[in-house]
Amino acid sequence: MILGIDPGTRVVGYGAVAATPQGPRLVEAGVVRASSRGVPERLGEIRAALDLVMERLRPEVVVVEEAFAARNVQSALRIGEGRGVVLACAVCAGARVEQMPPASAKKAVVGHGGAHKEQVAAMVARHLELEAPPQPLDASDALALALALFLRGAARRAGLPR
Amino acid sequence: MILGIDPGTRVVGYGAVAATPQGPRLVEAGVVRASSRGVPERLGEIRAALDLVMERLRPEVVVVEEAFAARNVQSALRIGEGRGVVLACAVCAGARVEQMPPASAKKAVVGHGGAHKEQVAAMVARHLELEAPPQPLDASDALALALALFLRGAARRAGLPR
Repeated sequence: MILGIDPGTRVVGYGAVAATPQGPRLVEAGVVRASSRGVPERLGEIRAALDLVMERLRPEVVVVEEAFAARNVQSALRIGEGRGVVLACAVCAGARVEQMPPASAKKAVVGHGGAHKEQVAAMVARHLELEAPPQPLDASDALALALALFLRGAARRAGLPR
Repeated sequence: MILGIDPGTRVVGYGAVAATPQGPRLVEAGVVRASSRGVPERLGEIRAALDLVMERLRPEVVVVEEAFAARNVQSALRIGEGRGVVLACAVCAGARVEQMPPASAKKAVVGHGGAHKEQVAAMVARHLELEAPPQPLDASDALALALALFLRGAARRAGLPR
């Protein structure tokens, strides 16, 4: 099972995809919301909640959205804090960790790297044969990461260029 | 007990100080070193090792060096990742978390915010009545954070300006 995670310091989206003979299928998707006022307390909430998600799903691979841009150093520090918690959770749960830029996930799922979140959600639904786009959009973004890694692996297994 | 932590993604310094009738005293200081090649794996190693430190020491307060500067966005993201793991460890261990800029710790311990690491180590040793400056310097920096928070509290209890 592949678990995609879209990190954050208030809302963390997650979405798990499993391979079936019919193709990739949704296992579970959702968001972890941290409600504490302080940053450290929110990070602690996220760690505790993600540990439970990991324990329940036991993913073989966790793919985390890669950050490479931020408005400034201050916001990069905050983004990094949220990512650090997620990466450590995944490793401590015994998963292999992959990182993927959002544009790569969009390209794999929608066909171009500049797709809007709604387009991504619609294509995630189509790939996973869901009746409606997954909600909320943070969960859909996380599913797109998992799906992108799945499709990359499928392309590799079929000998296609990625 | 106050535990100071100097975060990092390869080496994390920690140092614990307890109040005694004779003043602040060293409980334990050391470093956690992460040896994995990948960043996620190193963050996982740090989380696991810090969880053991927290379990052993059970600090009431954890004071973490605050980052407010970084060379660029990329290095801020990496610094943030290391900090996020530390902050979440402290909260999940039930500690109250304080953050302190390195210059404030140096000012409290040495008397001015621009002190070198060796000066900090020498003054940490004097405050804690150690025979030699604590080694390595990452552990000394962590002790300085804990000591600075202790001294701040002592000044407040004595009605002195901080």
